[in-house]
Formats: sequence, structure tokens, C-alpha cells
Amino acid sequence: MKLKVYADRLSQPSRAIIIFCKINGIDFEEVSVDLVKGEHKLPEYKDINPMAQVPAIVDERLKLSESHAILRYIAETSPGVADHWYPADPSSRAKVNSILDWHHSNLRLGSVTFVMNTVLAPIFGRTLNPQASTEAEKLLSSSFSNIEFMWLSGDANFLLGNPHPSIADLSLVCEIMQSELWHDKDRERILEPHPKILQWVENVKKATNPYFQDVHTALYKAKEMLKAKQSKSP
Amino acid sequence: MKLKVYADRLSQPSRAIIIFCKINGIDFEEVSVDLVKGEHKLPEYKDINPMAQVPAIVDERLKLSESHAILRYIAETSPGVADHWYPADPSSRAKVNSILDWHHSNLRLGSVTFVMNTVLAPIFGRTLNPQASTEAEKLLSSSFSNIEFMWLSGDANFLLGNPHPSIADLSLVCEIMQSELWHDKDRERILEPHPKILQWVENVKKATNPYFQDVHTALYKAKEMLKAKQSKSP
Repeated sequence: MKLKVYADRLSQPSRAIIIFCKINGIDFEEVSVDLVKGEHKLPEYKDINPMAQVPAIVDERLKLSESHAILRYIAETSPGVADHWYPADPSSRAKVNSILDWHHSNLRLGSVTFVMNTVLAPIFGRTLNPQASTEAEKLLSSSFSNIEFMWLSGDANFLLGNPHPSIADLSLVCEIMQSELWHDKDRERILEPHPKILQWVENVKKATNPYFQDVHTALYKAKEMLKAKQSKSP
Repeated sequence: MKLKVYADRLSQPSRAIIIFCKINGIDFEEVSVDLVKGEHKLPEYKDINPMAQVPAIVDERLKLSESHAILRYIAETSPGVADHWYPADPSSRAKVNSILDWHHSNLRLGSVTFVMNTVLAPIFGRTLNPQASTEAEKLLSSSFSNIEFMWLSGDANFLLGNPHPSIADLSLVCEIMQSELWHDKDRERILEPHPKILQWVENVKKATNPYFQDVHTALYKAKEMLKAKQSKSP
């Protein structure tokens, strides 16, 4: 059975998995689950992932959710995935795991909360919450500073000073790409004071192109649609 | 160099690591980092973990933070750790990883936010936030329901229907133990409608005693102190 990846390319962890599969030449089928249309809540998708979230995968052995668990699993079980993605050496692997674990309550929490409460809430029938976005901005700024200080010191191209990206680079950079949806002034204030982050994003793009740009096309289109909508609103 | 574990036993992920080391007969030194006294913010601790959080470990190979990364690393590198803790089989390992990853934005986020905003905030010089605790309660309740539905179906003693606990059982149950600090009425309303969760907590205790109870003594003492304080306040 060919690996099936259930994904919405507007979801940052979905994109990380699709890019990872493509760059590693993994034979997989992408199954689109449209979050805006609510397809993740349909019974047929809940049979794949009862948590009603993307991404998820199915192969001959298991159904699996949570993008970091999926990236680890594909890296460990697919032939031909280069070691730098998820190193076999226990110390290097532990460092990759540490960054992936740190991500959830820091960069990811900040990013998801910020974009929801500055841009996306109305699309999902919710109200923008300025207090939540202010707190999320603090978490985002401290996350960017921590990434620069902890893992991008010196002239490292990738996290942990490695010459090639790991699944942690890919996961975190796909999250940061969600900033494409932010208002320009927010991007200037929060992201642009972090040149090392911006350079690292470019490094990950370069190391994973043409797949990175291809998979992000959906995000760039969504950005254009949002901008058009915003320019029409009073 | 003997493994050093930097921990505060009032921190739930710290407890998970100490119990794991003890039950697996790992030769380690516990170094206390008192969060209430702010010892995690001292320069000598930031040299261990610049993120200023517990737990962290140091051995001859690396300094490492993030409790799940630490549990995975110790399980993989220490001789004599039984396979059920972090199975070598890729599918079983992936399922453990999936639960560990899920934990961050669900049970852990709900638990940390709830106890901070119903009990602990004043101790850390902050204000209790009822809106935050209401949202955290929703997340806690849905997390308990998801654990029961997803991973404790049938008459499973442990997550995924396994006959022995994994590092995911230990991490999640140590988090749930933080409910010892909740007000009784909150515990009755949120936790007690979940008999499978309560039974699973007992199973993990039984499988890891006497270490589980020993390591939780600090929590029980904190509970008594909080109750004494609450009964004196107007």
C-alpha cells in the first residue's frame, strides 16, 4: 500500500511533510483535506484521524497523526532518506527532538495564536482577539530570539550548526512561512528585526527547492486573496 | 561522567524523568533547581539550560532540555531499559511519539494554564485569570475525553492497549497528577467524570511504585501548604 498523506497545504505542518516526502523521493499519494470547507470534520476523515486535524498518514502498518511523529516515522522507515534529516547518532537525534518538542509551546503556539487573532478568525467565524495577539507576539519575539541564540549561533546555515537541514529546520521554517499571511506592518515589526531567522528561512528554501516553493504556492495564493479582501473592506 | 538530572519535583515533567531513571535503575544524580526561589533564572543554571526551564540533563555527551527528548534519549542510550518504555518497533514507537507530541498543545497546555489561573498565579506574583482558566478547562475536558476514546479503549491498562507503560503513559500521568493542587470542586467537576483516566493513573502508579509515590511527596506537601493557606484567607 502506497503511503497516503492527508494534508491541506495551507496548514504549515502539512506542508513540511509534503516537502519532506518530495525531496526524499518517497512514493506517496497526497489526499487533500480542505480545512476551510470543514472536510477534516467529515466522518470519512475522522476514520483516518479521530482528532479531526491534518496532517495524518496511512500506510500498510498504521494510521498516524501529529506532524513531528510522522516526520520521524517516515525518516526512520523510508529507504534513502539522508541521515542529516533525522540523525541516527543519539546526541544529534536528541538535539533534533529537543527542538521539535520545544516548538509546540513556543514558536507554534505563538504563530497559530497570532495569525488567528490578527487575520484568520473571521474566516472561521470567530472574533479577532487583540489581547491574545499581543501575548502571541511576545511569544513569537522570544521564540525568534531563542532560535537565533540557541541554535543559529556563529555562521550556521541550519539549526545546531549543521551543514544540511533536519526535520526540525523544515518544521520550524514551514511554521514561520505562515507569516506570509500577516499584515505587512506586523511582519516588519516582529520578524524583520531577526536577520538570522530570515537568512535561515532562505537556506531551508534553497535546500528544498523546487519543492518548497511549489508546495507554498497555495499559501501565496491565500495571501493574495486576503490582501484583495482587506483592500476592499472599509 | 554520571548523568545529572536538573529538576524541581513540583514540575510534572521533572517528576516523569526522575521516576523513569529510578524505575530503570539508571545511575544518576538529581540536582534540585527550586522554581519558586527562581533558581532556574540564575546564571549558573542558564549555563545548563539557557531557556531557564526544568528539567534538563547533562552527561558526557550533551546538555539537553525538553522532557520528552530527555526521556527518548535516556531510553535509547541506557542499557537495561525494557522495550515497552520506548519500543524499537517503528509503528509502536511512532504511536508513542504521536501521543507525546499531541500532549504539548492539549493536556499540557490545558493543565499548565488551569493550575496557574486557579491556584498558582499569586505565588508567582501574577493575577488569576478566570477567562484563561475557563478556556483551559475546556481543553482539559476534551483532552481527557480524547485520551479515553483514542488510547484507552476496551480494557487497556495503558495507552495504546499495551500491557506495560511507555514514556507517554508516564509523561501524561505526571501531568494529570498536577490536579492534586486544584480546588476540590474543580477536581470533582473536571477529572472525576473520567473513570478510565482515574483507573489509568492508578495503573501507572502501581507499575512505577514505590518511586511514583516517593517522587510525588513534594507535590502532596505543596497541596497541604496550599490548603492551609486557602483556609486562612478570607
